[in-house]
Amino acid sequence: MSKGRLEAFSDGVIAILITIMVLELKIPLGTQWEALRPLLPVFLTYLLSYVFLGIYWNNHHHMLHATDQVNGKTLWANLHLLFWLSLIPLVTGWMGQNDFAPLPTAVYGVVLLLAAMGYLILQTAIIAQQGTHSKLRRAVGKDLKGKISVVLYVVAILLAFVDRWISIGLYVFVALMWLVPDRRIESIVRE
Amino acid sequence: MSKGRLEAFSDGVIAILITIMVLELKIPLGTQWEALRPLLPVFLTYLLSYVFLGIYWNNHHHMLHATDQVNGKTLWANLHLLFWLSLIPLVTGWMGQNDFAPLPTAVYGVVLLLAAMGYLILQTAIIAQQGTHSKLRRAVGKDLKGKISVVLYVVAILLAFVDRWISIGLYVFVALMWLVPDRRIESIVRE
Amino acid sequence: MSKGRLEAFSDGVIAILITIMVLELKIPLGTQWEALRPLLPVFLTYLLSYVFLGIYWNNHHHMLHATDQVNGKTLWANLHLLFWLSLIPLVTGWMGQNDFAPLPTAVYGVVLLLAAMGYLILQTAIIAQQGTHSKLRRAVGKDLKGKISVVLYVVAILLAFVDRWISIGLYVFVALMWLVPDRRIESIVRE
Amino acid sequence: MSKGRLEAFSDGVIAILITIMVLELKIPLGTQWEALRPLLPVFLTYLLSYVFLGIYWNNHHHMLHATDQVNGKTLWANLHLLFWLSLIPLVTGWMGQNDFAPLPTAVYGVVLLLAAMGYLILQTAIIAQQGTHSKLRRAVGKDLKGKISVVLYVVAILLAFVDRWISIGLYVFVALMWLVPDRRIESIVRE
Repeated sequence: MSKGRLEAFSDGVIAILITIMVLELKIPLGTQWEALRPLLPVFLTYLLSYVFLGIYWNNHHHMLHATDQVNGKTLWANLHLLFWLSLIPLVTGWMGQNDFAPLPTAVYGVVLLLAAMGYLILQTAIIAQQGTHSKLRRAVGKDLKGKISVVLYVVAILLAFVDRWISIGLYVFVALMWLVPDRRIESIVRE
Repeated sequence: MSKGRLEAFSDGVIAILITIMVLELKIPLGTQWEALRPLLPVFLTYLLSYVFLGIYWNNHHHMLHATDQVNGKTLWANLHLLFWLSLIPLVTGWMGQNDFAPLPTAVYGVVLLLAAMGYLILQTAIIAQQGTHSKLRRAVGKDLKGKISVVLYVVAILLAFVDRWISIGLYVFVALMWLVPDRRIESIVRE
Repeated sequence: MSKGRLEAFSDGVIAILITIMVLELKIPLGTQWEALRPLLPVFLTYLLSYVFLGIYWNNHHHMLHATDQVNGKTLWANLHLLFWLSLIPLVTGWMGQNDFAPLPTAVYGVVLLLAAMGYLILQTAIIAQQGTHSKLRRAVGKDLKGKISVVLYVVAILLAFVDRWISIGLYVFVALMWLVPDRRIESIVRE
Repeated sequence: MSKGRLEAFSDGVIAILITIMVLELKIPLGTQWEALRPLLPVFLTYLLSYVFLGIYWNNHHHMLHATDQVNGKTLWANLHLLFWLSLIPLVTGWMGQNDFAPLPTAVYGVVLLLAAMGYLILQTAIIAQQGTHSKLRRAVGKDLKGKISVVLYVVAILLAFVDRWISIGLYVFVALMWLVPDRRIESIVRE
């Protein structure tokens, strides 16, 4: 089967998730500067989640670029990834509207962790289908960034109950790690 | 006419339906564990409906893979299927927010039944257009899974007023039946 | 310019409009049969608007099938059509939630009329671009159905203040006129 | 990398943003003419923002028509543009529901300004990738319209606190400037 519809469907879902998050940015009550203040934490979490969804879209784009065919397993692995991504607007809203309280901050990390695992499963499914000469396996390499992200998510989830700002800092760090062009970060990480 | 836009349009509608359901997962009030508890039934119904929509997308993908051309009848048969699918977020929300009460649980099954029939009609329309050497007819075979699903939906709808948990169990069973790779289940079913 | 993105964008907008209307179908309060009763008029208007949007998508599909190139004017004519279509969820909700009161019923017709004119403008823009040997002009012919629809919309808008059920009847008639396969109706109309 | 998915994703996001704005047009309370009156400012701001998003989609379409390949930088420049566009429904609703109060009117301009800059950054990224023989650079020329728009946005933001109607007038002027066919306006501007 060709990968065209899997790409189109994933594009659609991620595009909608990004824009659904905007619906959580409620129109401010009042027309003064103070009316904007309660929007700030919600806006910042929106920005963070926007970047995460952007990273997923970007990486998904790259991963499928190195893929020629898809099968039933790949389709379900992809739907599994999209399921966890679909919860991002919910946990973004919960965290943003509660000033980064410990539990919502931890749950935000849990969803990021599960999405990261979903991505890993999809990657593994594609590599398995491609067989021994897998283009994707060579492109991914040891996937150090992926493994570090998972560790950082786990640390962030646990630390949310100690000091949530460390958790937020770790989420931002993971996002930045993926934003920076790929090869550089990987060579830095290897050192 | 080419099938490209029919695929793109269906992808769009199903992608939106999946993400619209997330909007029913209201942001929890409070930041403690108890705040998450009322979300549980809504979350589980979301998961179930997500799997059903995923199955429809998956099967739709396969069905159109075995299709070359579409005509006016196919377009309307497709819109008919999408109509019933579009009601899934509504009945999902109704069932989830009312702890699987009998009537919402039955109505959920009615929408699943009508969607299954819509799928069957679309399948029949494509086979009719393809004529005697229909690729799709050979692929579908006797469509045992399709027929069993319809019977199970009818049973589940009726039993919702006796014991709703049987109905829920049947819905889950149908979903699992389609999730499991196609050929295996069919050979099991034939025995 | 190629028509691919115009098609994809229109597919996206119409797919979203169809599913946004479902959001107006509020989850029933209560779990008894009576809880479903207030949903009935909203459901019926949803069905009617779904069919209208389906017709537009279908005809748009056919029209662009007979089109090879698009230019700036076509893009804006298309955005103009989509603007009026985008108001359909709003007027559908207004009419459905007010038991087909005269003004909402008339305004519903006004939006349908403006959408029909938007479609005509788009059609004219494409024919103008195609020049004297326009494929689309031959396909459209005298466009009797288009002209009759406009007349019926105007009549329905005016009669909404006399007897709204006549208006509703006319809207349903126009929808059925377009649902029935094209050539037959046209030959009937010509007699 | 091919540009197909970048186009499809952008189409999806812009299509959803346009239709999400319709959700701010709340269904009127009551069925008389007066019920429609409070909708008027919201409707007019919807129309204005619809035109702006239409212009962005149209220009995005043209820009990518003159582009063959995309790279990681282009993908992120595109996501950056879409981020600011995604805030348009929010500021549209804020301005429309507060009768064009000074602060919301200024913030509306700020988002338009940031979107314009996002567009410029994307344009620069594509030109940089295309190198010295950039098709896009020749097509864009000195980009007088782009520069004038930025100046007008800044003026409009500042004047919102003096007389907001001047700001609104400037926003409408910028929209019209882009709506009118390209070459004419540019030659007028050069005189």
